[in-house]
Amino acid sequence: MANQTPHVQLLLTGNEIMSGDTVDSNSALIARRLGELGVPVLRKVTVGDDRNLLIRELAAMAEVADLVIVNGGLGPTVDDLTAEVVAAVAGVPLAEHPGAIAHLEAWCARRNLPLNAANRKQAMLPAGCALLDNPVGSAVGFDVSVGSCRILSTPGVPGELAKMLDIIVADLGRRLERASEHSVLRLQTFGLGESSAQQLIADACPDWPAEVELGFRAGAPQMEIKLSVDSAAALPARDLCRAQLESLFGDHIIGEGDTQLAEAVLDLLRARGKTLTTAESCTGGLVASMLTRIAGSSDAFHAGFVTYANDIKSAVLGVDEQTLQEHGAVSEPVVRQMAEGALARASADYVIAVSGIAGPTGGTPDKPVGTVWLAWGERDAIETLQLCWPVERTLFQTMLAAAGLDMIRRRLLGLNSQPRYFAQRRVG
Amino acid sequence: MANQTPHVQLLLTGNEIMSGDTVDSNSALIARRLGELGVPVLRKVTVGDDRNLLIRELAAMAEVADLVIVNGGLGPTVDDLTAEVVAAVAGVPLAEHPGAIAHLEAWCARRNLPLNAANRKQAMLPAGCALLDNPVGSAVGFDVSVGSCRILSTPGVPGELAKMLDIIVADLGRRLERASEHSVLRLQTFGLGESSAQQLIADACPDWPAEVELGFRAGAPQMEIKLSVDSAAALPARDLCRAQLESLFGDHIIGEGDTQLAEAVLDLLRARGKTLTTAESCTGGLVASMLTRIAGSSDAFHAGFVTYANDIKSAVLGVDEQTLQEHGAVSEPVVRQMAEGALARASADYVIAVSGIAGPTGGTPDKPVGTVWLAWGERDAIETLQLCWPVERTLFQTMLAAAGLDMIRRRLLGLNSQPRYFAQRRVG
Repeated sequence: MANQTPHVQLLLTGNEIMSGDTVDSNSALIARRLGELGVPVLRKVTVGDDRNLLIRELAAMAEVADLVIVNGGLGPTVDDLTAEVVAAVAGVPLAEHPGAIAHLEAWCARRNLPLNAANRKQAMLPAGCALLDNPVGSAVGFDVSVGSCRILSTPGVPGELAKMLDIIVADLGRRLERASEHSVLRLQTFGLGESSAQQLIADACPDWPAEVELGFRAGAPQMEIKLSVDSAAALPARDLCRAQLESLFGDHIIGEGDTQLAEAVLDLLRARGKTLTTAESCTGGLVASMLTRIAGSSDAFHAGFVTYANDIKSAVLGVDEQTLQEHGAVSEPVVRQMAEGALARASADYVIAVSGIAGPTGGTPDKPVGTVWLAWGERDAIETLQLCWPVERTLFQTMLAAAGLDMIRRRLLGLNSQPRYFAQRRVG
Repeated sequence: MANQTPHVQLLLTGNEIMSGDTVDSNSALIARRLGELGVPVLRKVTVGDDRNLLIRELAAMAEVADLVIVNGGLGPTVDDLTAEVVAAVAGVPLAEHPGAIAHLEAWCARRNLPLNAANRKQAMLPAGCALLDNPVGSAVGFDVSVGSCRILSTPGVPGELAKMLDIIVADLGRRLERASEHSVLRLQTFGLGESSAQQLIADACPDWPAEVELGFRAGAPQMEIKLSVDSAAALPARDLCRAQLESLFGDHIIGEGDTQLAEAVLDLLRARGKTLTTAESCTGGLVASMLTRIAGSSDAFHAGFVTYANDIKSAVLGVDEQTLQEHGAVSEPVVRQMAEGALARASADYVIAVSGIAGPTGGTPDKPVGTVWLAWGERDAIETLQLCWPVERTLFQTMLAAAGLDMIRRRLLGLNSQPRYFAQRRVG
């Protein structure tokens, strides 16, 4: 397999994927991780938990592919068929794998559970297989060769798959010597749309070099920009492209790799020895939750307030009742007083305050669903801004929580430019 | 096709899906919509925008399936190959379709655009096909028969696909008289593991009827149990199975369909005219965020406190400083005082308080990572509990936020039984 691109196929199993109850994001994750090595996935097939269908698909794949990754069906229940199917295609019996038993015993011991019959089934693997360690869950993966095809069976739980892919990708990378030449630079951005970013790049960089592949992955709240090259010789061109992207929308770039907005903000605060507090109405604790998801956030985040009701805005944050009556909860003076109240009560250096109408109800002709006031900054230097972001409730909460974090990020970096989303979302 | 379940397969095309840059949610949507008719999707295959690969897959499908839905590749660009591929498999030429031209002219006229060559390509369809109207976008779908297989080609833009599926599902429903007999009952649970649930059912219900299909979908924090039947005659058996599940783990069942824990808690509070507040340390606002994600949560949730640092627990919630020093933040007296402080400050009826060590650092031999104190209840009736849930940080936060909500749910329902996860997680 060394020194040439292997033919890779994916086989996905699970009734919940076939029924549409679960959207399969695992195959996208596998494709992205293999993509880091410059290895494309040629074809993927999904079938339900049906022994005969699975055997037929896997046998056909094993005849033509160099590598098949099977995902799902490693659990303890009767509809988890992967071990049985791989054994049938490899023409070997199932056998209790001592390494898998040891893994399961350790897993159960950590949870004070006995090793029951259902768990024990997870150690019945194709005879002679190698194990793929699962540092997170009970199901081990396994590695079986059928003719010239290598079959890797991986767990369906996304967090477990992600960890196992680290192992698989590192191993494949070692086998593919040319892989070390393939390199992917990922930039995380907030506030850019995929099509407008693409258009801006096309306009500003007509001579984009062919050897630098440009890709986008739009998510909520962030969008990833990806620069891939296939050889070390293309790295200087890649660096020039990066510089062009930075001059085009540098202030929208949060960081490299998987950097999250909350992480970037916490790093900036930590470097300055500063703390941040939050006063949230329509985002209902999401800004605080995004911050505290990051390990070590307690260095820079000590307190947050969720003040959903008007009387709580007064009682907890000291917002003036008359201001609330005159201007309503979604107004400049109220969001400013929320910010000031939170700063004082938390003795924090920086604050984010959000008050808006997340919907689906609660809008008025004056303040339709999607209307929101943001406040951010330091004592005696609080800025405010009205946006209108009329999207579905949870997406609204996600985008506005991120916008609040982005305002603090921009303040901490001393950026004076206006983010591009102001042009579309700003009111007044 | 009437009166028997058709054999359905999906063919998905798109380089962005193969690379993992886009997660395919279209196939799940198609499967769910067909599922409403009791029609399962047997198999789905995804390949990139490659003419030969697409022809090979579609030809193989047309030989065995009654219905193939092709998704994607209807756009105006050169890598949109679906019309060409379907024509090749059907053995007919491409021809400009007058109905498609009329649709495109109307679409362009509404936008004050001229009909250009790229658009015109979208009217080049397999000769003799029937149109599937696209009320939203420029790309019409089309309906072609190859032997006994019907091939429906649909657009990749999710909003356009959704509208076209309304038309397709209505048409299929008319063709399938028995559709109304298929029925799926989904129960949402918290605190059950997939393997232990399966084992308990196997032990308690040795005579589980073959006509009631049992399925599980483990998520975080909830697990879904699904009971499916194919005919109305099996409904009494399904109801008996449901009753057995309820007697086995009724207190772990949150509700039917998609019911989330936060939703169940809010419904119970609303029915009693009561409110809930939160005092969160290690969950960092996640309980508040889970509640406020639900539309209408403001009826029963007015305020939440994120008190991450010790001095904030004192300053904001009035936790006694000496208690903090003597017992530490992760202790029974502190979590109880957090609960009492939040209840008083928010003037709420019920409270959830959480203080624990989410990790990855911060553990001690005495209080390892995963140690957590929960408090919940009403004024003068607050209960507390120590659990140890040593899992990865964000999963810990998700499970503990859910456990807090579950405690309030049990209190509101007057349940006296101990949840099964106590056996595994409880300390002391």
